[in-house]
Amino acid sequence: MVQSIGRVAVMGSGSWGTAFAKVMADAGRDVVLWSRRAAVAEEITRQHRNGGYLPDVILPDNLTATSDAAAALTGADAVVLAVPSQTLRENLAAWRSLLPTGATLVSTAKGVELGSLNRMSEVIADALAVPADQVAVLSGPNLAKEVGAEQPTATVIACSDVDRAEALQHACSTNYFRPYTNTDVIGCELGGACKNVIALACGMADGLGFGDNTTATLITRGLAETARLGATLGADPLTFAGLAGLGDLVATCSSPLSRNRTFGARMGRGDSLTDAQAATNGQVAEGVKSCASIRELAARNGVEMPITDSVYRVCHQGLSPRVMAAQLLGRARKAEWS
Amino acid sequence: MVQSIGRVAVMGSGSWGTAFAKVMADAGRDVVLWSRRAAVAEEITRQHRNGGYLPDVILPDNLTATSDAAAALTGADAVVLAVPSQTLRENLAAWRSLLPTGATLVSTAKGVELGSLNRMSEVIADALAVPADQVAVLSGPNLAKEVGAEQPTATVIACSDVDRAEALQHACSTNYFRPYTNTDVIGCELGGACKNVIALACGMADGLGFGDNTTATLITRGLAETARLGATLGADPLTFAGLAGLGDLVATCSSPLSRNRTFGARMGRGDSLTDAQAATNGQVAEGVKSCASIRELAARNGVEMPITDSVYRVCHQGLSPRVMAAQLLGRARKAEWS
Repeated sequence: MVQSIGRVAVMGSGSWGTAFAKVMADAGRDVVLWSRRAAVAEEITRQHRNGGYLPDVILPDNLTATSDAAAALTGADAVVLAVPSQTLRENLAAWRSLLPTGATLVSTAKGVELGSLNRMSEVIADALAVPADQVAVLSGPNLAKEVGAEQPTATVIACSDVDRAEALQHACSTNYFRPYTNTDVIGCELGGACKNVIALACGMADGLGFGDNTTATLITRGLAETARLGATLGADPLTFAGLAGLGDLVATCSSPLSRNRTFGARMGRGDSLTDAQAATNGQVAEGVKSCASIRELAARNGVEMPITDSVYRVCHQGLSPRVMAAQLLGRARKAEWS
Repeated sequence: MVQSIGRVAVMGSGSWGTAFAKVMADAGRDVVLWSRRAAVAEEITRQHRNGGYLPDVILPDNLTATSDAAAALTGADAVVLAVPSQTLRENLAAWRSLLPTGATLVSTAKGVELGSLNRMSEVIADALAVPADQVAVLSGPNLAKEVGAEQPTATVIACSDVDRAEALQHACSTNYFRPYTNTDVIGCELGGACKNVIALACGMADGLGFGDNTTATLITRGLAETARLGATLGADPLTFAGLAGLGDLVATCSSPLSRNRTFGARMGRGDSLTDAQAATNGQVAEGVKSCASIRELAARNGVEMPITDSVYRVCHQGLSPRVMAAQLLGRARKAEWS
C-alpha cells in the first residue's frame, strides 16, 4: 500500500518545476522547491516569486525553496525531477544518497538520453537502482506560464503501479489542474520526447512561410511516426491519441510560448544552428538534441520516421529547410495507412 | 474498371469549391465550376478571379464557370459537390436528372443532416439513388485560402471503391496538393462533421480568455468523443488519428481563418447566438447546426459526447460558456481511458 503524499520535493526551479510546485502547494501539499542558485531560492521563499521564469505569478505561502538538496529531500514522500533531460543522470548521482527510501519519483523531463538511448524513467530507475514501478511520469498539454496563471489544464500521470499513480493524482488535483492516470509509461514518455522534434519541424515550416494546413499535416504525420516507434517499443497506441500524445503535441506546436517551435522558425527563416543558438542566449531547444537520440532509437528498431530524420538533417547535417519541405512533400503518392 | 477522370464539374463556388476547382485544373483536368450567381460565374470565366471568396487568387485558364447546372454537368466524369450540408439534398433534387450515369460523386460538405441524421455521402446516395461506392469523400486539413495560395497541403480521399479513390487521387494531385486514399468513408465524414463543433468549443474557450493548454485539451478530448461515436457507427479508429480526423481538427481549431472558431469566440465573449449571427452577416457557423444532429446521433447510439453536448447547450439552450467550462473541468477525476 502506498501512503498518501504529504511532503514533496521539487528538484529544479525552471518554469515547469516552479509551476508544478505551485500546483502541488495549491493542492495542499507541503512543498520544498530546490534551486541550483541560492538567490533564486531566496527570492521564492521570501518574495514568493520566481522572476526569471514566471514573473507574473505569486507563489503560495506553503511553497518554500532551498539550494540545499538534502534539506529539500529529507522526509519527502514524492520527489519531482524537473531538471533538463540531458543533465538528469548527473543530478541523480549527486542526490542518490539523500533520497528517502520508497518515495515516488516523478519524471517531468522530456527526452531520450544521448548515448544510452534511455527514456527518462529508465535513467531514473537505473541511476538510483530503484524498481521501475516506483517512477511516475507527468506529461500533457502543460505550458508552464498558463498553469502558473491557473488556466484550466489537464495532464496525465503514468505509472505501472496504479496505487502510486492515484496517490499522486490526489496530491496534485486542484480546481484548475486535472490529472488523469494511465499505466503506459513508455507511451507517455515517447509522446513527450518526440513532440519537441515535431515542434521544431512546425517552426521550420512557419519560418518558411507555410500556414495552418502544413502545421496540421506535420502534427498528424508526426504523431503517426511517434506512434509507430511507440508500438515497436511496447507502448499502448491509445496513449498517442491522448493528452500526453496528441494533447502535448498540439499545445507545443501551436503555442508561441514553445521554445522548440520558436527555435525551428529561426532555422526556417535561414538561421544556422549556431545563429539560432546565439539568438537564444546560447541555448539549443531540447528537440535539437532529442532528434539525434530518437532517430538512433528508430533506426535501431527498424522504424521509419521521416520527419524526425529531416529535422536531424537540418539541425546536424546542414540540409536546407526548403529542400527538406520539398522532400517531405515529394514522397510517393499512396494510401494513408500503408 | 473506373475510367480516368478528364472532365470535372464542381458544384458550388464558395471558397472551398473554388480552391478545389483550381487544384483539379492545376492537375490538368478540364474543370467547369457551377455558381448559383451568374455574375460570379462571369467573373471567374472572364477575369479568372472569385473576388468574394478568394480575392488574392488568380484562377487557371482551364477553369471556367457557369450558372447553368446542365452545362456544368454534361459529360463530367466526376462531380464535386461543394454546397452547404443542410442544402445539399435540395440541390441534388434539382440536379438529379442532369447527372451523367456512373460519374464519381465527390462530397466536400461536412455535417450531419438535421432530421434524417444522415452523413453527406448517405444524403447523396439516397437523393440520387446511386450505390454508396460511387460516392467519394474529400476531407483533411484544407483551409481554402491556403490551398488557393498553393501552400503544401495533404488530404484524404475516402471511397469504398478503391479504383475510384485512386482515379480521383490521380486527378487532383499537384506539387502542392497531396491526396492519400482511404476506404473508411464513415470515419472521414464523422471527423469532418464533429470538428466544426469542437472548433466552436475552442473558440468559446478562447473568448473566455483561456490559452493553448485548454485548446489542446479540448482538441484531444473532442477527438476522443468523435472516435467513440465513430467506433459505434463502424468507422476505423485509425481514421481519427489521420488527416481527416486529427489533421482537419487541428487546422480548424488553430486557425484564425476558421469560421466556427471565430463564431465560438464571439459567444465566449458573451454574445448570444443571435448577436453572433448578426455580427457575421446573418450566417451561423456550420457547427451550430451540426451540434444538434451529432448530439442526437450520439444519444440514439448511447455514446457520451460531453463537449458536443455542452456546445449544444450553449448554442441552443442558453447555457453560459463560463458555466460550461466549469462543468467540463469538474467531471470526476479518473483514468484517462475509462
